[in-house]
Amino acid sequence: MQLTTFTDYALRVLMFAGSAGEKLVTVEEVSRVYGVSRAHLVKVVHLLTKEGYLKGFRGRSGGFTLAKPPEEIRLGAIVRLTEPDFNMVECFSTGNKCMIIRSCLIPNAINEALTSFIATLNRYSLADIMLSEYNFMYPDPPTEGTRGPIFGATGVSRSPK
Amino acid sequence: MQLTTFTDYALRVLMFAGSAGEKLVTVEEVSRVYGVSRAHLVKVVHLLTKEGYLKGFRGRSGGFTLAKPPEEIRLGAIVRLTEPDFNMVECFSTGNKCMIIRSCLIPNAINEALTSFIATLNRYSLADIMLSEYNFMYPDPPTEGTRGPIFGATGVSRSPK
Repeated sequence: MQLTTFTDYALRVLMFAGSAGEKLVTVEEVSRVYGVSRAHLVKVVHLLTKEGYLKGFRGRSGGFTLAKPPEEIRLGAIVRLTEPDFNMVECFSTGNKCMIIRSCLIPNAINEALTSFIATLNRYSLADIMLSEYNFMYPDPPTEGTRGPIFGATGVSRSPK
Repeated sequence: MQLTTFTDYALRVLMFAGSAGEKLVTVEEVSRVYGVSRAHLVKVVHLLTKEGYLKGFRGRSGGFTLAKPPEEIRLGAIVRLTEPDFNMVECFSTGNKCMIIRSCLIPNAINEALTSFIATLNRYSLADIMLSEYNFMYPDPPTEGTRGPIFGATGVSRSPK
């Protein structure tokens, strides 16, 4: 079970823009900080602008910034916007061949779990995950470790707003 | 965001075996009911047997059955067993290039959402999703519809055991 790279980048672009406050940021800066290709990020920024999460400013010193207060941007809403589908099991798509599609109770349980997933993310706004400029100016040393998955983790260290 | 076909089939194999009670079921029967290939199902049955969820009986009238009471088989445990990874975002894997891997708060929120997802599934045992023999004998008519995803769905209609 994975989120798409597109969703991952969307969360990170918004976090970067939010952390910069009113300062305009550029795709090049985001690309450098996260070590991801500019081409991928351009598509992400395009969608987030179209959907009213970012606003862009053209010109030599152009860039983009959040289009609304970070407290109003819920993480679950971003994931729902950017994931291409939530077809967790075959019968969530059309054209499946299962003979018990109407009576089966598996989709109900999966739907409920998916709702919990999104609801948990929606408890957090972008404001809850923003970092200080310091974090981006003095990046973490390279690490071989990972950040998850850790089942039973207790979420971000600040209280949800 | 999707579960693998392997997980989907594992849940369905267990549901079919559980619904049959003490009667032995075969891969051929499962294949027919769900319209999925025998080859895929053999691998699923092999893992579920190895992990103590199914037990097989060889011979001309052989087949398999649940190896433990359905009340003791939790859906979240099955999903954790069968999903190859839960690398929801880049930094859940090794070798990522993000420069803020230690300070970033996104993985914490994602971990918490993933924990909610599994915990919700674990509220249900196999006994909660078992069907009657009738459902398998008189299958639902073909449908063009789907069963989800429906955010806000309230789960299976029976109370979790």
